[in-house]
Amino acid sequence: MVPAKKKAVVLGATGMMGQKFVQLLANHPWLEVSAVAASDKSVGKPYAATVGGQIQRHVLDDLGDLQVVEATPRALDDPYIVFSALPTEVAGPIEEDFAKAGFPVFSNASSHRMDHDVPLLNPEVNAEHASLVEAQKRRTQWDGFIVANPNCTTAILSLSLKPLYDRFGLETVIVSTMQAISGAGYPGVASLDILENVIPFIRNEEEKVERETNKILGTPTKPATITVSASCQRVPTIHGHIEAVFAKTRTPTSPEEAAKSMSVGRLRRDSALNGIKYIVLGHNLVRGGAGCSILNAELLMAQKYIQ
Amino acid sequence: MVPAKKKAVVLGATGMMGQKFVQLLANHPWLEVSAVAASDKSVGKPYAATVGGQIQRHVLDDLGDLQVVEATPRALDDPYIVFSALPTEVAGPIEEDFAKAGFPVFSNASSHRMDHDVPLLNPEVNAEHASLVEAQKRRTQWDGFIVANPNCTTAILSLSLKPLYDRFGLETVIVSTMQAISGAGYPGVASLDILENVIPFIRNEEEKVERETNKILGTPTKPATITVSASCQRVPTIHGHIEAVFAKTRTPTSPEEAAKSMSVGRLRRDSALNGIKYIVLGHNLVRGGAGCSILNAELLMAQKYIQ
Amino acid sequence: MVPAKKKAVVLGATGMMGQKFVQLLANHPWLEVSAVAASDKSVGKPYAATVGGQIQRHVLDDLGDLQVVEATPRALDDPYIVFSALPTEVAGPIEEDFAKAGFPVFSNASSHRMDHDVPLLNPEVNAEHASLVEAQKRRTQWDGFIVANPNCTTAILSLSLKPLYDRFGLETVIVSTMQAISGAGYPGVASLDILENVIPFIRNEEEKVERETNKILGTPTKPATITVSASCQRVPTIHGHIEAVFAKTRTPTSPEEAAKSMSVGRLRRDSALNGIKYIVLGHNLVRGGAGCSILNAELLMAQKYIQ
Amino acid sequence: MVPAKKKAVVLGATGMMGQKFVQLLANHPWLEVSAVAASDKSVGKPYAATVGGQIQRHVLDDLGDLQVVEATPRALDDPYIVFSALPTEVAGPIEEDFAKAGFPVFSNASSHRMDHDVPLLNPEVNAEHASLVEAQKRRTQWDGFIVANPNCTTAILSLSLKPLYDRFGLETVIVSTMQAISGAGYPGVASLDILENVIPFIRNEEEKVERETNKILGTPTKPATITVSASCQRVPTIHGHIEAVFAKTRTPTSPEEAAKSMSVGRLRRDSALNGIKYIVLGHNLVRGGAGCSILNAELLMAQKYIQ
Repeated sequence: MVPAKKKAVVLGATGMMGQKFVQLLANHPWLEVSAVAASDKSVGKPYAATVGGQIQRHVLDDLGDLQVVEATPRALDDPYIVFSALPTEVAGPIEEDFAKAGFPVFSNASSHRMDHDVPLLNPEVNAEHASLVEAQKRRTQWDGFIVANPNCTTAILSLSLKPLYDRFGLETVIVSTMQAISGAGYPGVASLDILENVIPFIRNEEEKVERETNKILGTPTKPATITVSASCQRVPTIHGHIEAVFAKTRTPTSPEEAAKSMSVGRLRRDSALNGIKYIVLGHNLVRGGAGCSILNAELLMAQKYIQ
Repeated sequence: MVPAKKKAVVLGATGMMGQKFVQLLANHPWLEVSAVAASDKSVGKPYAATVGGQIQRHVLDDLGDLQVVEATPRALDDPYIVFSALPTEVAGPIEEDFAKAGFPVFSNASSHRMDHDVPLLNPEVNAEHASLVEAQKRRTQWDGFIVANPNCTTAILSLSLKPLYDRFGLETVIVSTMQAISGAGYPGVASLDILENVIPFIRNEEEKVERETNKILGTPTKPATITVSASCQRVPTIHGHIEAVFAKTRTPTSPEEAAKSMSVGRLRRDSALNGIKYIVLGHNLVRGGAGCSILNAELLMAQKYIQ
Repeated sequence: MVPAKKKAVVLGATGMMGQKFVQLLANHPWLEVSAVAASDKSVGKPYAATVGGQIQRHVLDDLGDLQVVEATPRALDDPYIVFSALPTEVAGPIEEDFAKAGFPVFSNASSHRMDHDVPLLNPEVNAEHASLVEAQKRRTQWDGFIVANPNCTTAILSLSLKPLYDRFGLETVIVSTMQAISGAGYPGVASLDILENVIPFIRNEEEKVERETNKILGTPTKPATITVSASCQRVPTIHGHIEAVFAKTRTPTSPEEAAKSMSVGRLRRDSALNGIKYIVLGHNLVRGGAGCSILNAELLMAQKYIQ
Repeated sequence: MVPAKKKAVVLGATGMMGQKFVQLLANHPWLEVSAVAASDKSVGKPYAATVGGQIQRHVLDDLGDLQVVEATPRALDDPYIVFSALPTEVAGPIEEDFAKAGFPVFSNASSHRMDHDVPLLNPEVNAEHASLVEAQKRRTQWDGFIVANPNCTTAILSLSLKPLYDRFGLETVIVSTMQAISGAGYPGVASLDILENVIPFIRNEEEKVERETNKILGTPTKPATITVSASCQRVPTIHGHIEAVFAKTRTPTSPEEAAKSMSVGRLRRDSALNGIKYIVLGHNLVRGGAGCSILNAELLMAQKYIQ
């Protein structure tokens, strides 16, 4: 007998990131989207009537008739695993409500990322941070908990830095990004601003990269002390953030030596930091964003934080 | 002595088309932008603080300090020539108010285009329609008047059809357009919708092209009876609408013969309509839109409808 | 026991279309690429060393070590099904050599498309044309045969026209295309020519569309007599040709009636031809090009023309 | 009386950079293109027949009838100022031939850039290097001389670094570039490689940036000793290289202090180098490339190195 799948709800399911959650969960082995929640103007409508072109039609064959519900725990009858694609402006308190009500919440919003006992989790990088949910539950006395995933640029960057950090230590990282438009959601970037152009500014992005990288690479209770400096640019690509990275390790290394433990492009010597430089590319919605959140749920399930 | 320039006001001056009006008027020989009007949220602010990247900076050296006023005649002290870049949803009554108050109004909105005594003017094509303002003033008893310019796609199409219409008559026109994103204003088309894509639908555009082409090519009082059928598509270009045109003339003609009176690309025989086919390209904001409105003002000045 | 797969060879395997053949055949249920042939400068090299970024890396895990052979029947030891992605300039005689030597040849080149006894085959549209290979073999006394697939634009167009032709007859078709850059091969279109631009000319394309559509929609021995007029444009999209179609049927029909037998976008009345107009989109390499050739091989296998 | 203009010849005049030279010289106050030279396949043809779409048509009204000549001094009858847009593979000896024959040569090729007595000249940055032509003439015993302009990325970078270097000294520079496709010439980058993509590699570019920046910022006889590390990427923009720069000055400075002497975008503190970071954008063909070469000719004229 095939065991029943666990119910999942996507908060902010009508936005681009929310649609991506629904899309990625469509064929999940043990999770199924059983509810979609969004803001008032969508509540009560069939899900299919609220989404645009960011979701594949066949996904809606199954889920298009789901009636959109309010993003509150009251709207749910059963245990659910909660995926939050809510905009940062509103995500904070709503996610807390769900955690209070006993739900495990996996959030793509930045609201709680830097809370000391919220794991900022990039599962291949810092799985051991998952244990922070215990401290979180002790402090909050909630039945549920919140797990955050990093900003998509950081998700990709930290994945490439992790083996360097573990083997050689890291002192300094400079990263210059070329980020895809899907990172800005929908409608997001106006076509007149980006077609045949580069936008050399993404609000709050550099700060997030600099801060989150240290939290992820540190221990659960103590951030790393890498000096990270980012310059973030938007380019006319659809999906996939590409990052030019310059890194100075604590123990000096060579590109050849570094290559033994990491897999990136154009790994070569960097004279400026007396370190190495390389190119890393990752899908911002699949390896960052929604995809990272789902990996986190899988990790917490495997670690028995979810029953 | 250099005579003083005439004062011009741009309504909707903070939008993309409004900025284009201001830009194109920047070095006009006898017109100068002396007022900029916009919606409540911009009123009272310096113009420079209300515009984005759609205007060249040096234009703002002169005009950036102008305080944005309300789009009502009351906000103006003097005679002005009025250029309207208002959105169609609000343009109609506001433009009437200005005409009532004695101002000549040159409008890019579609609100009044099909009014029987409002000239739909594309000056190289139907300058003689300008005289309709007399009938308009008789009917309305306004001191001012409204002149409309066509939809940008029609402006470009009708310019290419005019010589065919005059020499051979026109029975049928099929046009398939590839339109630039600036035709949709700002923020307009979302980059996720158009980057590396074609959008095969532009709301109301086909209807406008089919209707306006006949009004322009007819006499001031009687539209032409050309059967026009359009398929309008948006493509990832910034400025410039390109149109593939198939035309059947009343008197049969050849590409060679047609070429003597028109200047387009790839003029060749069309077997389907037993006519000709060709490509025409025009700048949607300069030959259509704002640029066409300014040409119209120049025409009505030359014809003494403006003192 | 799983029966052994049939051997396939791709001629012109190092070009973009050739790589697409190899890619699409990678998981074919009963065909496997056992040889790759190309021009002299690639002969003798491992296939992986001759291809660029137009093929997915995992395909090369299996096939990358194949040594590229000459595009002549002599280079092959066994019965093969031949897929030709050769450039039109050289395809004709090479494909004949293979057919002479007993191989079934499925060609994407235009060389033999209009030969009266070469099926121009778009399998969902004119499967019955396959029988032409019998006449071809009688005439040529070859042991093998040549089957051509249409130009990619025509493949997509004829698929949409077929139900109209069958139910209502077709008198006139006007089509204006917006074609992707992959239709021009690699390196193909220079980025300076197409980025943020439309190229309103594709050499020989309009003639092919007009001619091939009639051959496909006719009987095996008699082309249809539809008047087809095309205007072909290149737009900055990567894959997928989009076509704006205007069609006049012999028996008048309505969009509602037509919709019962076809599946396209924006099906609506067309006033110019007194017919219907619509938008059709197809993947130029998968539904046209390589993909169509492979479908053709599947058809001829099912019809027992291949043992 | 208007004095006669000086005659200029453009070598490699049919390529994209050559066309840009001709275009930029079209209205020059004291230079006029009197000869165009190119490779054998163009020699003898009218210039208009050898160029593509990279030049404005009105320029060809005047120059289109010029017959293309061989790129050798023999082909010229008179004193000419020579602008070289030759490909680097052939530029070296041809430019030497012209210098030997007494012509002043302004070259965009990289062949002679690092020769110790060839000025690598970016006129607003290191005008004093012009004097190197004296040493060059002494060594070579040529009547003419060669002046090189930097690689376009370096031209833009060094312009932004110069005020920092002069006021604070420079220790380390990291630069990550987003370069336009016109930097690769025509046909240059294949559209399939760059549309909706970033190419994180430009052959030899990083080495040039690292080397040339030091030559330019040094004295005429001694390069600077800045540690420069570059990561060069191509993005889908047409003209204009954008560069994310991280700089450590010898005397520490702040963004506010630095801003007093330079004009760039997003000047802010950089924690990694304990310096500053900023964005600089320049037109690769106008401020680098052809435009820089012409500025160099103007400088050497002003400094009386050209009579």
